[in-house]
Amino acid sequence: MSQYRVLIDANDEKGLVHKISTVFVNSNLNILSNSEFVDKENNKFFMRSVVDGDIDKKELGSALKEVLPENADIKVIEPKKKNIIIMATKELHALGDILIRHESGELEANILAVVSNYDKLEALVSKFDIPYITVSHEKLERSEHEKKITESIDSFGDVDYIVLAKYMRILTPGFVEHYKDKIINIHHSFLPAFIGANPYKQAYDRGVKIIGATSHFVNNNLDEGPIISQEVKHVNHAYGWKDMQRSGRDVEKIVLSRALKLALEDRIFVYANKTVIF
Amino acid sequence: MSQYRVLIDANDEKGLVHKISTVFVNSNLNILSNSEFVDKENNKFFMRSVVDGDIDKKELGSALKEVLPENADIKVIEPKKKNIIIMATKELHALGDILIRHESGELEANILAVVSNYDKLEALVSKFDIPYITVSHEKLERSEHEKKITESIDSFGDVDYIVLAKYMRILTPGFVEHYKDKIINIHHSFLPAFIGANPYKQAYDRGVKIIGATSHFVNNNLDEGPIISQEVKHVNHAYGWKDMQRSGRDVEKIVLSRALKLALEDRIFVYANKTVIF
Amino acid sequence: MSQYRVLIDANDEKGLVHKISTVFVNSNLNILSNSEFVDKENNKFFMRSVVDGDIDKKELGSALKEVLPENADIKVIEPKKKNIIIMATKELHALGDILIRHESGELEANILAVVSNYDKLEALVSKFDIPYITVSHEKLERSEHEKKITESIDSFGDVDYIVLAKYMRILTPGFVEHYKDKIINIHHSFLPAFIGANPYKQAYDRGVKIIGATSHFVNNNLDEGPIISQEVKHVNHAYGWKDMQRSGRDVEKIVLSRALKLALEDRIFVYANKTVIF
Amino acid sequence: MSQYRVLIDANDEKGLVHKISTVFVNSNLNILSNSEFVDKENNKFFMRSVVDGDIDKKELGSALKEVLPENADIKVIEPKKKNIIIMATKELHALGDILIRHESGELEANILAVVSNYDKLEALVSKFDIPYITVSHEKLERSEHEKKITESIDSFGDVDYIVLAKYMRILTPGFVEHYKDKIINIHHSFLPAFIGANPYKQAYDRGVKIIGATSHFVNNNLDEGPIISQEVKHVNHAYGWKDMQRSGRDVEKIVLSRALKLALEDRIFVYANKTVIF
Repeated sequence: MSQYRVLIDANDEKGLVHKISTVFVNSNLNILSNSEFVDKENNKFFMRSVVDGDIDKKELGSALKEVLPENADIKVIEPKKKNIIIMATKELHALGDILIRHESGELEANILAVVSNYDKLEALVSKFDIPYITVSHEKLERSEHEKKITESIDSFGDVDYIVLAKYMRILTPGFVEHYKDKIINIHHSFLPAFIGANPYKQAYDRGVKIIGATSHFVNNNLDEGPIISQEVKHVNHAYGWKDMQRSGRDVEKIVLSRALKLALEDRIFVYANKTVIF
Repeated sequence: MSQYRVLIDANDEKGLVHKISTVFVNSNLNILSNSEFVDKENNKFFMRSVVDGDIDKKELGSALKEVLPENADIKVIEPKKKNIIIMATKELHALGDILIRHESGELEANILAVVSNYDKLEALVSKFDIPYITVSHEKLERSEHEKKITESIDSFGDVDYIVLAKYMRILTPGFVEHYKDKIINIHHSFLPAFIGANPYKQAYDRGVKIIGATSHFVNNNLDEGPIISQEVKHVNHAYGWKDMQRSGRDVEKIVLSRALKLALEDRIFVYANKTVIF
Repeated sequence: MSQYRVLIDANDEKGLVHKISTVFVNSNLNILSNSEFVDKENNKFFMRSVVDGDIDKKELGSALKEVLPENADIKVIEPKKKNIIIMATKELHALGDILIRHESGELEANILAVVSNYDKLEALVSKFDIPYITVSHEKLERSEHEKKITESIDSFGDVDYIVLAKYMRILTPGFVEHYKDKIINIHHSFLPAFIGANPYKQAYDRGVKIIGATSHFVNNNLDEGPIISQEVKHVNHAYGWKDMQRSGRDVEKIVLSRALKLALEDRIFVYANKTVIF
Repeated sequence: MSQYRVLIDANDEKGLVHKISTVFVNSNLNILSNSEFVDKENNKFFMRSVVDGDIDKKELGSALKEVLPENADIKVIEPKKKNIIIMATKELHALGDILIRHESGELEANILAVVSNYDKLEALVSKFDIPYITVSHEKLERSEHEKKITESIDSFGDVDYIVLAKYMRILTPGFVEHYKDKIINIHHSFLPAFIGANPYKQAYDRGVKIIGATSHFVNNNLDEGPIISQEVKHVNHAYGWKDMQRSGRDVEKIVLSRALKLALEDRIFVYANKTVIF
């Protein structure tokens, strides 16, 4: 008996559920859970099913392909640990939260390494017997620096996700392209408010009564990738911007870890610069 | 072309989605939205679909009945305004919120009347050209009082829901039985905390840092019916119990109106003293 | 015995609390509540006290003026109903919420009138015996239109606050200047995200997972006035922009009414385009 | 120059602020922040000031004692790291969160040791060079077990706080008395709902739409000590009780760490089984 996550998106048309469920019935699969969504505006159909049964993964994929429209994107995924790389700079909270969750076994992930432009977090990471690679950006052009990082990352073989746990440098389009749809970032504001540098300072200057954090996939427009999860926290006039920063950390770490878990559990569809999350 | 809401619950078994979707395809129905849930623990299947097409309501019901297991509960509902009665005592906020929403056209409901044990809210209700019926409980046994209320309510014909918008008297089992599964209440605490009288006073005495409100169907155990919706609000030491009460009103009215809308839109399944909400 | 709200802001210096409390003691005043805040960055001191005693309002003001630095802004306010005008366009929910609260007696306010550029809300407002003035903007220059509105408003005498309950037209600097620090608006996003027109559409297009609303004083930069209160609501991929709009209304009305109450209770200081709220 | 936290509570009477601020002025102290609260119902006055200046700690205490009523409780505290012991059982998340915060330097605390009735968390704790003491409860009477724990704890000298980071055994009155007002617990429900064992299972059975966690001081009535902080999370019908448990962990750890920080920063007054928090 194998368990699969079946993810399908396609242009919507009458009868898709029927076609898919017919394949499931014919394959003698048991549906453990099932979520679907039709985006009427864009005429798009999304479905995520968890099934178990005796069929081979490829066979199931082919059976679905046969009945579904050509444009359909079909994924049949066997749940297993995904390989991730974490990138960080100097802040400990988001990285630490992932390390602790990893230690507890709650993440379906192998952390292959932590890559940073500083050595500040090495002491923490090495406690967990995870490789820590310092790639200093000093005296390097951005492209040279990223080349070194890419070499480090790629030396670990296939990577499913790269998690930017408060990695505080802007990535070039080349880097983003190289790891297309694989980079998950945490931005320390409720995007699209306060794009760019020091969002807590911006938030303080604007006098907001709520601060937040946003996890998102990274694309080539800074802080404009598809949003995965957001969370906020009330503040008041007594919060200076450093208080906001301090107090925002709890939101940041929870939101980043939540996004990572959703990705690891294959719960996210991306389209039209948005996410559908089951 | 007619639009229907199809609500099905049944003991779970392999192939239910397939059977239902086959009926939809054969009936040439278009699925506008579709939600399903399987409660593994209780082996229960729930599904709510909104469909449109050319088939007659009864025919669709029969077609579904034919393919589904005998225990299945099948409802095919044509969206239309439901008839509701509101019961209140002296507080204006929850009633007022419903009246304003009704006025704005956002509720799929006809408010047949407001019934109260006091005349205090008559001035407000009469502004909206809705009958206001005062049924004083003074000098009456509880059963006599309820008999009078029941007569008032039943004089309006079929009633879909009775909304207790801060109706502050306990209802007898007889009354509840008479309007089984039709009575929606708002309790001014995050149940099951602070069951019974004056929950804000209880909350204040306990020194909680969060207050809340709970909308629920009424059954025969006080404040123990199936919960529909809950919402909370942070408080602090500076809140006396009257501050909690004042500030809790915003939560109460939103939560009650939310529950009412869910009911009017046929989004609630009740089972095992719980709700499944799509 | 009179009760006063004493609001003081001044450049911070050692001993301000001592000076103020000395006046209170010498005036034989009882302090019912007391809040203070020092903004270290801007070296500003804020204090709001509620006191009762036998002293005359002017006398108390003078006594405070004598001991406090010249730059101090001192207000001694006798709690009483403030005069407000509500401006609206076509949407009913925010206006309706204020009308119901007014009816319940929870607002320290007289609603002098509702002014709108459409007659759509007249039926509702007239139920409450409040004057409704339609000032159509059709065929009028913006300045002409505002001139007519100003005349309408000013015909009611002194106005403490003008509440924009989803008034959907941009105000000119002249109008804003005429009612400086008196105009409270609700913007249907968590500012500064989604400034300008149709923020729910913008939010939908960006794929956010949280929507919100912001009440703020109006100054001459559109949607950039001092923020009073903000609240948010989680949404997901299933929300089209009209669903966001519908569901955002509950947030909007609560946030606007909350801001209005803070203003009516003299709980807001404005400085540096921010608010200090006690 | 020294910085002090001054905490005063007393029966309320006219002029307390004046008396205290006179001492501050006469001692040539600079007030960095100041919070006060009067509980009218219980006629209690609370004040927390952060001051700096050149005066000796004892001197300041005496000066305050001289002017304040006899019943006043006056604390002058020099900010420094407090000594804490963490107790845990098998769950890693709450303990891990504290370890990471400690590592980041955000906690004003020395973690003297982690004490557990199992050895399961030793691997984690030893990474951080913190003593881990397993005191198995097997084959021991509760009192014997606690005696051993007490010996372990007391061997570290003075302890300011004992943090129960999901320590899953009930403590005897003797133990609680021994560490009176020093034990901070996290209960995995929004108390007072779901007192006792397995609150997530209770919550699931009740069909709640919100789960929560509560940090509180421990007194002799199980789960009835003064509440420090509470937080909640929305759930729906799709959450089994294990999903609630999993998802509740994020709330638990944040709420416990928040309470610990408040305690470490001397921001909590306890009275009448409640907390006043500045």
